[in-house]
Amino acid sequence: MMKSSSLFCLLYLLVLLLGFLCIALTGYWVQRWRGGFALQGSALFNWHPVCMITGLIVLYGSAALVYRLPFSWTGSKFPWKLLHASLTLAAFIVSVLGLVAVFKFHNDHKFPNLYSLHSWLGLAAVGLFSCQWVTALCTFLLPWASIWLRNLYKPIHVFFGMMILTLSVAAALAGINEKLIFSLDPRINGSLPYASLPPEACLMNAVGILIVVFGLLVLWMLLRPTWQRPDLSGPEVRQPLLEDDEEEECQ
Amino acid sequence: MMKSSSLFCLLYLLVLLLGFLCIALTGYWVQRWRGGFALQGSALFNWHPVCMITGLIVLYGSAALVYRLPFSWTGSKFPWKLLHASLTLAAFIVSVLGLVAVFKFHNDHKFPNLYSLHSWLGLAAVGLFSCQWVTALCTFLLPWASIWLRNLYKPIHVFFGMMILTLSVAAALAGINEKLIFSLDPRINGSLPYASLPPEACLMNAVGILIVVFGLLVLWMLLRPTWQRPDLSGPEVRQPLLEDDEEEECQ
Repeated sequence: MMKSSSLFCLLYLLVLLLGFLCIALTGYWVQRWRGGFALQGSALFNWHPVCMITGLIVLYGSAALVYRLPFSWTGSKFPWKLLHASLTLAAFIVSVLGLVAVFKFHNDHKFPNLYSLHSWLGLAAVGLFSCQWVTALCTFLLPWASIWLRNLYKPIHVFFGMMILTLSVAAALAGINEKLIFSLDPRINGSLPYASLPPEACLMNAVGILIVVFGLLVLWMLLRPTWQRPDLSGPEVRQPLLEDDEEEECQ
Repeated sequence: MMKSSSLFCLLYLLVLLLGFLCIALTGYWVQRWRGGFALQGSALFNWHPVCMITGLIVLYGSAALVYRLPFSWTGSKFPWKLLHASLTLAAFIVSVLGLVAVFKFHNDHKFPNLYSLHSWLGLAAVGLFSCQWVTALCTFLLPWASIWLRNLYKPIHVFFGMMILTLSVAAALAGINEKLIFSLDPRINGSLPYASLPPEACLMNAVGILIVVFGLLVLWMLLRPTWQRPDLSGPEVRQPLLEDDEEEECQ
């Protein structure tokens, strides 16, 4: 029977593959049907779905699983903290670029911002993400917080991490649905209607389902007890952070 | 300091209040701006959002928390199983009525079915829900399955239960967004555009956020370890179900 750690690694590869597929298919959709990428004009918008899926879902979801990698459980935790912080920071920066693209596109074309439920959800996800990142930096990475505070905050950080991913997935699904309604409108641009399910509608509906599978897989891998980092936070291993490499509050 | 069980009961009341608010505000929206309820014509559609939010989100989420009620932990588990099964069955029936409403409305008006990502997500949620209900009936309620099988299936049932709620919330959010885009279209019905955020858009965007808060609260209450039913599944209390009232596999 396959070892639990091997199964985890195999599923992590599947997560990365699914994530890559979501980004690549969204890029293909934009390139094939929506005018490709540009820094102005209507193609400026196209950075938005690609950046948001890359940052807020794929990079974010992959970063969330770092502490579940079995080979991260031995030795110093500090490099894994740095990797987790760096990947989530990259996820945040790419998401912000995606927001810049859509705000600039709206402003250039005198379209209103932030009216749809999709935009409210997306903004809530990015807002919570920024709070989460700064709070985690202050609590887990910088040497100010006590072990007591870290252990108090840890389950809150993990829960909000999962909820931000869930919110991001919901925002992405509403966004794909919204974009297909607007784009596949024969009254405006003579395209086939969304209701006739042309190839690009099938493709992006399928990407929506892939995003759901990606999100559910990440959540399942985060929640499975046997894949959670063993709690080594007994008093004998609790030492001030950044003074010694052996910080061991469980995350 | 407040007892953990009192906090749970208080939050359960908050869940019920939030759920009631989501249903009442959606009903108000339909009544005030979308022509009320009817069994034919365009008002037939209006049963769809109300039934789906009532069944697939509010009833479903409330039913999921039944085993976390502290006073369900003592005495026989059987009445609580029946309550959980009945509430989820009611949730399923109300959801199916919501689906019947939208299919009949589409067919009456020669609109295509099942093309949007919203509809794919909603159908996936209802499909998984029906599989989940039947599998749980056969495993937990009928006397066929062994304790070994029940304990094997239990974490899968709990995980899929949470994922179906998450999927339902995502489908509802995409659906509200879609309905507001279609309804608030000056080219078709001379209404104010969604982009100008008229009162009904603000109301239903806010209902979307309330649904997110409802879903996150239910998931948090399900995941919090201290609110999970103690595992009494030691060999001394494992007895065949429906032969004795003392079935005790942990759920």
